[in-house]
Amino acid sequence: MFKVIEGGVTAPRGFMSSGVCCGIKKRGKDLALIYSEAACNVAGVFTTNRVKAAPVLVTKERVSKGKARAVIVNSGSANCCTGSRGERDARKMAEITASGLGIAPGMVLVCSTGGIGRYLPMEKIVRGIPNAVRSLSPGGSIDAEEAILTTDLVTKSIAVEFKVGGEKVFMGGIAKGSGMIRPSMATMLAFITTDAAVSRPFMRRALKAAVDVSFNRITVDGDMSTNDTALLLANGAAGNARIAGGKHGKIFQDALTYVCKDLARKIVRDGEGATKFVTVRVEAAASEKAAVTAARAVAESPLVKTAIFGEDPNWGRIMSSIGASGVKFDCDNTAVSINGVSLVKSGARTKYDERKARAAMKKKEIIICVNLSSGKAVGEVWTCDFSHGYVEINI
Amino acid sequence: MFKVIEGGVTAPRGFMSSGVCCGIKKRGKDLALIYSEAACNVAGVFTTNRVKAAPVLVTKERVSKGKARAVIVNSGSANCCTGSRGERDARKMAEITASGLGIAPGMVLVCSTGGIGRYLPMEKIVRGIPNAVRSLSPGGSIDAEEAILTTDLVTKSIAVEFKVGGEKVFMGGIAKGSGMIRPSMATMLAFITTDAAVSRPFMRRALKAAVDVSFNRITVDGDMSTNDTALLLANGAAGNARIAGGKHGKIFQDALTYVCKDLARKIVRDGEGATKFVTVRVEAAASEKAAVTAARAVAESPLVKTAIFGEDPNWGRIMSSIGASGVKFDCDNTAVSINGVSLVKSGARTKYDERKARAAMKKKEIIICVNLSSGKAVGEVWTCDFSHGYVEINI
Repeated sequence: MFKVIEGGVTAPRGFMSSGVCCGIKKRGKDLALIYSEAACNVAGVFTTNRVKAAPVLVTKERVSKGKARAVIVNSGSANCCTGSRGERDARKMAEITASGLGIAPGMVLVCSTGGIGRYLPMEKIVRGIPNAVRSLSPGGSIDAEEAILTTDLVTKSIAVEFKVGGEKVFMGGIAKGSGMIRPSMATMLAFITTDAAVSRPFMRRALKAAVDVSFNRITVDGDMSTNDTALLLANGAAGNARIAGGKHGKIFQDALTYVCKDLARKIVRDGEGATKFVTVRVEAAASEKAAVTAARAVAESPLVKTAIFGEDPNWGRIMSSIGASGVKFDCDNTAVSINGVSLVKSGARTKYDERKARAAMKKKEIIICVNLSSGKAVGEVWTCDFSHGYVEINI
Repeated sequence: MFKVIEGGVTAPRGFMSSGVCCGIKKRGKDLALIYSEAACNVAGVFTTNRVKAAPVLVTKERVSKGKARAVIVNSGSANCCTGSRGERDARKMAEITASGLGIAPGMVLVCSTGGIGRYLPMEKIVRGIPNAVRSLSPGGSIDAEEAILTTDLVTKSIAVEFKVGGEKVFMGGIAKGSGMIRPSMATMLAFITTDAAVSRPFMRRALKAAVDVSFNRITVDGDMSTNDTALLLANGAAGNARIAGGKHGKIFQDALTYVCKDLARKIVRDGEGATKFVTVRVEAAASEKAAVTAARAVAESPLVKTAIFGEDPNWGRIMSSIGASGVKFDCDNTAVSINGVSLVKSGARTKYDERKARAAMKKKEIIICVNLSSGKAVGEVWTCDFSHGYVEINI
């Protein structure tokens, strides 16, 4: 139904972006700008952390009004726990961007990512913004992708092309991680643009639904960072009949979910210290919620994750973490396999070949499959292993 | 009110214990026996993990009947996910112990700790039990302490002496950890003996109350291992008037809580890879539950724990983990200090001296104190830091 293409957030018509160095980080680009030639409908999903960064407060308020034309983002400082001065700084960042672009200040959204508790170096940012405005280009996604990174090792982007009622539509997204062993504790930012014409209420529902099965599958509920933000901007340049649900809504939702899942997986792959990409799939659960809860318990267990790093098919740690998850199931009817090697059946060890099981663990992609024999629901959570590298990065 | 003495579980009159090698582990003692000359009233607290090891099922049933005279414990295998054969093995272990001691099989409790999913090597255990019975001695606590260890580096015991209504009473305890970064995922065993005469209903309440503020303060609710067990045996040899509450109950409760807290702290100190002992204290919370929930969120954050290992006074990670804990509080009225150095006041960074803050982090004992300004309740959780050693031990 849709084609994967190049171009990130500038793949959709009418969007430009840039990324420049303004000196907040010791090296590399640290100021990104995404700009739409026309006013966009906008939807956002924000951190549920009670400690919210200043830019989250400002952007949330503006998104609730429904319209935007630009997003200015800095890396290198989270502007969090910075009180009223932090909020003034976030508003000023938006204001200066608006004045450089010649648009209303309320049309600029603002995001920050980096360490908590330091004020933004506003002089540097004020000097950098005109440079970001001058550098805007229809091929500038890659520069914005770079400028939003913190401890990420690689940029993360995706774009797709699809048709809505005969009209060609583009959608593009970029994201950053990456303190991902407990993914929710690092700032996750995702920016998605589209030239589709979409109604605001539908956009909001669609973004929430897509985030629930993508970014929230790498995150514990209620345990996000202080700055997590996912924004969707739709400028209508495709000229399609406005999408508000129905068949066209389904196509749009599928594309948006695909984009969010792709970015979510890219965040996990670039997790701090990650050497393996792990899918925990729980099948035959009583409900999707139970499946996801059980999968999360496995995906977050430091003992399971260190075993994966050590390439040890330690199914006992998997059983114990499911048992501790609070999900109801019958231990004696549970099965566990890793990369197709059946390790547990009816709650007890199968007669598996130890060498085969160890060989399966050597792959870079690990799929842990748990069957709870207690229903028909399925849920997946993505994570990475837990290595020396994680400790090294975070000390 | 009480005096700390030597002697562990054999400090109380009428108790003997032993620890022998029977070959379950590659090296070291792996079979422990605790024995009372007279029948004991018994109380127990068990794992809430839905996956329960066979010995937990057997012991829980026996404890519910209220009487016991011996506990047989093996390390080196958890006898978990071993189905009906596992349960038969656990019962057989108790039966052979009973026959060696010349007592009724129902009077023997049984515990196991070690890896999940392997059957007990019953031949070795059957051969080892008579040796454990022969080796029983009134000074044998140290041998039992050794025989219950898995990845623990040191033995853990405590004993106290106190008076109840003019009679001298003794209480002793031993415990093992130690996969303690997420403490609940490793097996915690604790055995507490006393020669006090205590009523069973009171013992049960007292043990639960003591465990709630000790072992459960190093554990996430509902997230314990498959084998966690704390047992209290009281043989009445002190000849005191039976304790069932009131003033004497208070004295007994205080001693029991002291013993449990001491053992819980010893488990944390010997946590896998631990280089520091960390107390997270949350003050001025709306309720004790809120205080403990917030403290646990900090104590379990891998980002906070790696920062402590790196001796970095990273209060931003502390603030973020409290914000993500689900506890309601006003971020702008929150204060954080570490080892007495005030880092955050009114939700923002104080003008602290960076060198002083770093120097405070160099200590082996770290006290993180968080003031939520939202009530009068206090709660503490104990943990350790998160080091390369943890990853090394668990891969």
